[in-house]
Amino acid sequence: MKDIIIANLSSDAIKIINDIKKGRALFLIVSASTLISKIRGISIAGENPELTLYTPAADLEYLFLGKSLSIDTIPKTPEGIPTPAIITRVCKNLLRIPTLALNAGCYVKPKISNIDLNGKYGEDIRSRRALDLNVSNRIYENCKIFINEMVNDYDVFIIGETIPGGTTTTMAFLAALGYECYDKVSSANKDNPKDLKRKVVEEALRNARISDRMDILEIASIVSDPFIIAASSLLEEIIRNNKYAILAGGTQMASILAFLKERGLKIKKTIIATTRWILEDNSSDIVSMVNEIYPIPIIASNISFKNSRFSGLKKYEEGYVKEGVGAGGIACYSYIKGIPFEKIEEEVEKEYERIFL
Amino acid sequence: MKDIIIANLSSDAIKIINDIKKGRALFLIVSASTLISKIRGISIAGENPELTLYTPAADLEYLFLGKSLSIDTIPKTPEGIPTPAIITRVCKNLLRIPTLALNAGCYVKPKISNIDLNGKYGEDIRSRRALDLNVSNRIYENCKIFINEMVNDYDVFIIGETIPGGTTTTMAFLAALGYECYDKVSSANKDNPKDLKRKVVEEALRNARISDRMDILEIASIVSDPFIIAASSLLEEIIRNNKYAILAGGTQMASILAFLKERGLKIKKTIIATTRWILEDNSSDIVSMVNEIYPIPIIASNISFKNSRFSGLKKYEEGYVKEGVGAGGIACYSYIKGIPFEKIEEEVEKEYERIFL
Repeated sequence: MKDIIIANLSSDAIKIINDIKKGRALFLIVSASTLISKIRGISIAGENPELTLYTPAADLEYLFLGKSLSIDTIPKTPEGIPTPAIITRVCKNLLRIPTLALNAGCYVKPKISNIDLNGKYGEDIRSRRALDLNVSNRIYENCKIFINEMVNDYDVFIIGETIPGGTTTTMAFLAALGYECYDKVSSANKDNPKDLKRKVVEEALRNARISDRMDILEIASIVSDPFIIAASSLLEEIIRNNKYAILAGGTQMASILAFLKERGLKIKKTIIATTRWILEDNSSDIVSMVNEIYPIPIIASNISFKNSRFSGLKKYEEGYVKEGVGAGGIACYSYIKGIPFEKIEEEVEKEYERIFL
Repeated sequence: MKDIIIANLSSDAIKIINDIKKGRALFLIVSASTLISKIRGISIAGENPELTLYTPAADLEYLFLGKSLSIDTIPKTPEGIPTPAIITRVCKNLLRIPTLALNAGCYVKPKISNIDLNGKYGEDIRSRRALDLNVSNRIYENCKIFINEMVNDYDVFIIGETIPGGTTTTMAFLAALGYECYDKVSSANKDNPKDLKRKVVEEALRNARISDRMDILEIASIVSDPFIIAASSLLEEIIRNNKYAILAGGTQMASILAFLKERGLKIKKTIIATTRWILEDNSSDIVSMVNEIYPIPIIASNISFKNSRFSGLKKYEEGYVKEGVGAGGIACYSYIKGIPFEKIEEEVEKEYERIFL
């Protein structure tokens, strides 16, 4: 049986893993859009730039129904590699974990039931602020309202994301805060389009005129996206209520740490759980990024598609897609609850077959 | 200390009361609009007919925030009598019960976080079907998706409503199914506008051409409202999962029983919990209505505003408002959990003072 991968602060990681073996967990997927995903070359989370705007809705529909409603197939890259939600769905069903989707600002409204946060998609930050401050405030407050209703009934909260273009807005947000992030943020593409991302971020920052006197929610409203704001609010309340949190995602999760650090919050009982594919990505460095911002433990799923019968899955081993829709985090949580990674691999094969053959 | 009122099937009622003393409960408020509420004289759940369309959003905002965002004050009747959500909010806070609002089709979108069911407000059934069948189907399926995520983690589900005009669509739905309901359905008005309601219902039924061969979801789509469809779906799944349900409302709740009876479902572990004001209403008869459709136990809160310092609350004793936003049901549940009705009365006085003085 394959072990889980511990990538940062191992004794803290092991303590959290042991603490969350028991207790109730709630799985939350924060979905949103940023118009940055429409820039050609930024995101492969969709068959073409326009379709990336449909991906959050289609991911959620697929996760809950087994098929997308807003587009004809489940989300795919231009090369036809399927969304990581395929892993998420398998784990969700194996775990029978209660799952709620949050709509922080999807360009295309999901057709399945979801928590409407009264947000809005993020604008193209090269030329405009991502969100009006009153919209950011509403997202932030509405996450608080929602999570406070649920926080007493669960011990562990797993927070995933679906937001194409989100690594670029993460880069912009972290750069605005002065972090060395240009060489550390990941991408769903095999070849991380770093130069393009850097260009987008530099243009955004030139126009944004971020100042030291600005409040963190204002900075996030100018140069980030609805996901970063929603997830930061959720994590803040979870921590204030002394519960456990699993940040189920890749380098985007670092932005939440940066946000809450600015809020002066002591981040505790929180772990990043991602995939081996993120750790092995030479174009990014989640560990040093997190350690620069706010060191917390990092673990990763040890799923491999090397022996898959399907080229669409094998491509994950070449560095495509890597992470998303909470795939790494929910796979780690499955492992912690006694479901071997081998079992997940096996079920993903079956699910792939069900969808595509 | 005042006792709870048992109004139907007392031994069954007492058994359920005892069974639900322990265990976790989730409070769900289904919100929706029907354009029927715009007909002058139909609904006093708003200061004027146009404002009744804002009431669901404003009720939910007030319930979670302590103030409405979509209108200037909390919802009131034309005479200035406040929404029963004032009782609901007091009980919610005393109980610290997890509460989620569901938007089955509000004309005005609530600004606070809510479960978006991808529904739509109900059209004026005098001239059009309430909902397209594909919208009804989506509401029905989305309720199933949502409730199945939550159903394992709670033992008791309390279902309330906020839908101005809902007693008229209830009347239409029950009449379409052949029930004797014209003299049994209640109203938020002191003087139940029965003749007007009957006229609306008869006009709706003349145009609807309901046939015996129609499926119940189709009938509901033609002559009911989004609340009836959503709440029926929720209750169906709760019963299938062998959990307890409290239908927290007045005569509208009978429509859910009628819906599920047509689906061939054995309704069990389900109780209607309403207010004394509904039971004492001479213009309606919830008990005989429920017994005609599907006999289940009925209980009621024993809150009195006779000695209130505020005329807005005293009006409840004259027969205004009576019920809504789950007020009776959540007050009954509070009593069952050990909170005396006297305590609720006391806190409602304070809350009224906080809002209006």
